[in-house]
This record gives sequence, structure tokens and C-alpha cells, in this order.
Amino acid sequence: MKPYVLGIDIGGTNTVFGLVDARGVVIASASIKTQKHAKIDDYIDELYREATRLIEANDAQGKIHGIGIGAPNANYFTGTIEDGVNLPWPTPIPLAQLMSDKFGIPVAITNDANAAAIGEMTYGAARGLKDFIMITLGTGVGSGIVINGQLVYGHDGFAGELGHMIVKRNNGRLCGCGRTGCLEAYCSATGVARTAREFLEIRTESSQLRNLPVDQITSKDVYDAAMQGDKLAQEIFEYTGTILGEAFADMMVFSSPSAFILFGGLARSGELLLKPLRNAMEKSMLKCFQGKAKVLLSELKEADAAILGASALGWEAKPASAPSAPSAVPATPLAQ
Amino acid sequence: MKPYVLGIDIGGTNTVFGLVDARGVVIASASIKTQKHAKIDDYIDELYREATRLIEANDAQGKIHGIGIGAPNANYFTGTIEDGVNLPWPTPIPLAQLMSDKFGIPVAITNDANAAAIGEMTYGAARGLKDFIMITLGTGVGSGIVINGQLVYGHDGFAGELGHMIVKRNNGRLCGCGRTGCLEAYCSATGVARTAREFLEIRTESSQLRNLPVDQITSKDVYDAAMQGDKLAQEIFEYTGTILGEAFADMMVFSSPSAFILFGGLARSGELLLKPLRNAMEKSMLKCFQGKAKVLLSELKEADAAILGASALGWEAKPASAPSAPSAVPATPLAQ
Repeated sequence: MKPYVLGIDIGGTNTVFGLVDARGVVIASASIKTQKHAKIDDYIDELYREATRLIEANDAQGKIHGIGIGAPNANYFTGTIEDGVNLPWPTPIPLAQLMSDKFGIPVAITNDANAAAIGEMTYGAARGLKDFIMITLGTGVGSGIVINGQLVYGHDGFAGELGHMIVKRNNGRLCGCGRTGCLEAYCSATGVARTAREFLEIRTESSQLRNLPVDQITSKDVYDAAMQGDKLAQEIFEYTGTILGEAFADMMVFSSPSAFILFGGLARSGELLLKPLRNAMEKSMLKCFQGKAKVLLSELKEADAAILGASALGWEAKPASAPSAPSAVPATPLAQ
Repeated sequence: MKPYVLGIDIGGTNTVFGLVDARGVVIASASIKTQKHAKIDDYIDELYREATRLIEANDAQGKIHGIGIGAPNANYFTGTIEDGVNLPWPTPIPLAQLMSDKFGIPVAITNDANAAAIGEMTYGAARGLKDFIMITLGTGVGSGIVINGQLVYGHDGFAGELGHMIVKRNNGRLCGCGRTGCLEAYCSATGVARTAREFLEIRTESSQLRNLPVDQITSKDVYDAAMQGDKLAQEIFEYTGTILGEAFADMMVFSSPSAFILFGGLARSGELLLKPLRNAMEKSMLKCFQGKAKVLLSELKEADAAILGASALGWEAKPASAPSAPSAVPATPLAQ
């Protein structure tokens, strides 16, 4: 097996990429602006130039086993970025095909939360775990589910959208997906800010959050206030952690993971979030699962995590055929 | 491979068992009373005598590939029946070990809903499906989840308890598990009867259900009334189907199955249940999953289903080692 993989994380603003070895060391990394090119071909040309520069500077020509890409709405089975994403090019985008044509290297793609789960399993807190659920708490709530050592893609490649579990069946908050009551509307960074605005409107207690323009309050503001002892801000974290813990208990009856692994900005809130989360999870748990699931934090370095997650998928990339897709699904056009 | 398996379904009242061939034909079957023996060894002795009689009568001595058992709280990984079941013997019961010691044939065990899923995949409506969820609607609500062709057992063997998803987070009905708001408290046969009692108390419309002693109303009574045009009874099915459909939409974001397969008494209610179920499911579905999942009825013959489901597991039974358990789990003591 060749000694390196190339990991690429395509975000709405930046595309970061890096050369990674089998131990999960990011040898070198760089980035380009995702939005710079109106045509996908021009974007891929620049990515190819910059990645090649990185590869050559590190003497890695001919030593790349595969390319792994994490991107919004990226489908592992079809190799395409599907509709409904905030990227400058028309969708669907046959990204795996375009990239493997350009690089002459096998390519595998998946969405960013799935990539994070694979990264955690390969290099992070989930090493040795066969059954776990990765939850990314950022602007939204993403998830990657691993069962018996395999990432769950579902029949169509779209499984693992746990940010869109319904946690409030009645009078739930409107979610970006158009429905109401989704987990993401409560337990993302945005959700925390919404809770802050709700609490400030409904409740009468004093809070240092009242000194801020209400429309501009962020989850970071709530965190800072809570750490300074602001009771209302602490309650906002209790509310958030409780909803997340109740949701984890519901996920448990599905796949009985041995751990939930948290990643993303909100996960760095530490015990402010984790304490109510664990309490609510155990309190809500079906008896046979009580005390069984750990709640862990990601062990990937923040700066490297996106590249590492994507790169781990690069080890799975196979030339000339689908990456172990179910037989009912058309073969992914991965090879050139 | 030897040509037959022995399928055994252990219920609270009866234990039914049958000789099954590779095409899923039940060659012969019989039953004994589960409650007859106070000691598990005596029960297994009788089961052995009766099963041997069946095997000899059909010239199948030495031709049994394996024994598959479906039983309440039976754990595939450990081979034991765990605590908290309505059986006459002290738990945990090392059933796989006891049975393989007695029969000299490899044994695999799992709970009845998982056995139903394996049966459906091997012989029924799920043939050729890689990703589906089996839902059994009986006295309770059971489930067996199949992802990428494999039954989901979770890290401890207890995954797939979807009857205990929380569908009413506030003011939910008390469930047999001790928590409130579980799917099972609404969408089981018992749940339908509870809904009937609630509706009759709260609502004022006339209904032929009012002619029955309210404590004795069963889901069958509600079905009969609904089929005779009773509006309130029809609404009870709408209520039940709607809750089930909303729950299916939530299961979809987890594993994105291509089908939900219904089994059990309530599933025979047909369109009374299926119409509101499908409507609610599609209405509640995250956009990327709309129109993708089928709702199917079991294709196993009612009389044979329990035996077939258990027997299908018999093909997986392996001598002298665990049935592909994760390495973190102690090896199942299957062989003698």
C-alpha cells in the first residue's frame, strides 16, 4: 500500500487539504477559496495545482494511495454532491469522477460528519470502537453512525441525519430543513443562540446577556456568560444538554452504541454541556441500556480534524469500482 | 451444508418448533407448553424428545445444519436469555450453551423481532433488500433493523428496541418499561385499546364501542367497529397510524432503509392503519428521503412465521465459536 493519502475538506468558504500518513500525521496542508471559481472545472484545476505543489514539496509523487473528500451533501455511493448545498456550482456535481479523472488517483467522498466519524475511528477517540455515534455540534448538528465497524450509509447514501430527529413534536422551532422541532434547531450553536433569545424574552431574571444586542448574541457569548457565573446562561446550557441527552437515549434504542463522540465548537463547552447531557441521557435511558454508553469528546486536533477525517476515507478509496457499495446501487464511477 | 435447520420460537405460553429446508418450507412442526416445567433442564429435555421425534419421523437425523431460536430478551452475542422476561425459569439462562450441549448441534439465538427480520430477509418480503426495518405490532412493538445486509445488534446485543423510541416527550402514556411516551404505548394492540378508552372518555360522539365494557375493549373490537363504518373507531386507527408514520420518518434519518416491513396482529388491519401511516410518514419526512421508503406487509405465512424467522438464524449458527460477534465481546459458548 502506498504510504500517503490526500484529505480534502470542502467547506462553503475554504477548501483545506493535506497530505496524511498512515499514523494520522498531517505532513503538510494548505487551502484555497471555495467560492473563487464560478466553474467547477476551474476550481478543480486550482485544487490540482496546489495539491500537486504540496505533494512535490514533500517528495510524495506516486505515493498517494487515495484521495478522501468530505463535502456537504456528498454521497458515498454515487460519488456526487447532491442538490441543496451552499456551493457556487450547479448540482449534482460528479465530484469523485471529476477528481479521479484529474488526479489519476482513486477518490472516495462522503459528507463532513461521516468523514469526522471515520477520522475518529481511524485516528481519534473511537479507535477500537465498533459501535459509536459521532455528533458534530457546529452551525448545524451533523452525525456519522458506525455499526459493527462500518459507517452507516443507508440504502441511498443519506443515512445518519440525526440533526433532523424530531425532539419537539408540537410547537417545535422551525428548522432550516423546512420542518419543525429538529434536534439541530435546539442543539447547534445557532440553536443555543435561539434559546438565549427565547429565554431573554420570556424570563425576567437579570443576566449579563441583556447587555448585548439581542439579535447578535452567539453561543460563544452564552458560554462566556455561563463561565462567569451568569445563571440564565448556565440554564441555557442545561436546556441544550438536556435535549441532547434525551435524544442520545433515543438513538441508543436504535443501534446501542458504546459511545457518543462530540465534535465541533459547542462540544468545547465542556461540563457546562456535558453534565446536563449525561444526566438527561441516563435518566431517559431504557433500563437495559443504563450506564452503558460513554459520552466522549473528539481527540482530533481542531486544526487537523477536517483534513484527517477526509483523509481517513482515502484509505478506502478503490480504483475502478464502487467503494463496497451494496449491489443494488450502481457502481460508482471512481476510476478514470 | 446440511439440508435442514430447526427453528424454535419460545413464547410465554407455547414453544413452537419446526424442521425447515433451505427454501423456507416448514417440513413439519410441533409445539410444547413453555410453562409446564419449573426447571429449565426438564423443559430442554422435553423439547429434545419432541424435536428428535420430529426429526426422526422426517428422516432428518444428522442432516440439521443448525438450530435457530427466537426468544424474549435473547442475546445473540452472549447466547443467554437476559433478565426481565416472563418465563418460568431464573434468568440469565445460558440457552445457546444448554441447547447445543443437549442437541450436539450449533445453536444461535436472538429476540423474536430480530428473528422475524432475518426470516423476512431470508424467505419473505425483504428478500434482496439490504436496508430495511422490521416492525412487529403485537401486544408490544418490536423491531429488527437490517443495515447493509446485516442485522444490527449494537455493542451489547440489545440494539433495535424501537418500540421504546419516545414519541410523546411530555405527558406521554406510561409504558411497561417504566418510562413514558414510548411508541409501544401507542402503536401496539394494547396501545390501540388504550387509545379507544381515552377517546371514549374524552370524546362525546356516539360509537358502537360504547356498547362494550370499556375495560375489555381490544384492538380487534376497534378494528371490527372501524370496518363497519364506526367513525370514532376509524379515528383511532388514524391516530395510531399517524404516530407510527411520524416515528418511521424519524427512523429514516437514522439508517435510511428502503422499506419498513410490518408484521403482527395489528398489521393485518390493512389500509385502516396503512393509509394514515403512509400519509404521516411522507408528511413528516426530511425532504431528501421523501418518496423513498416503502411500507410493506410481511410475506411470511402467519402460522409458519415464528418458526421460519427462528429457523433462518439456524443457517448462521456456527460450531465452537461466536456467530461473528465483535471482538470486544466475549466469545459465545455455542459449541459443546
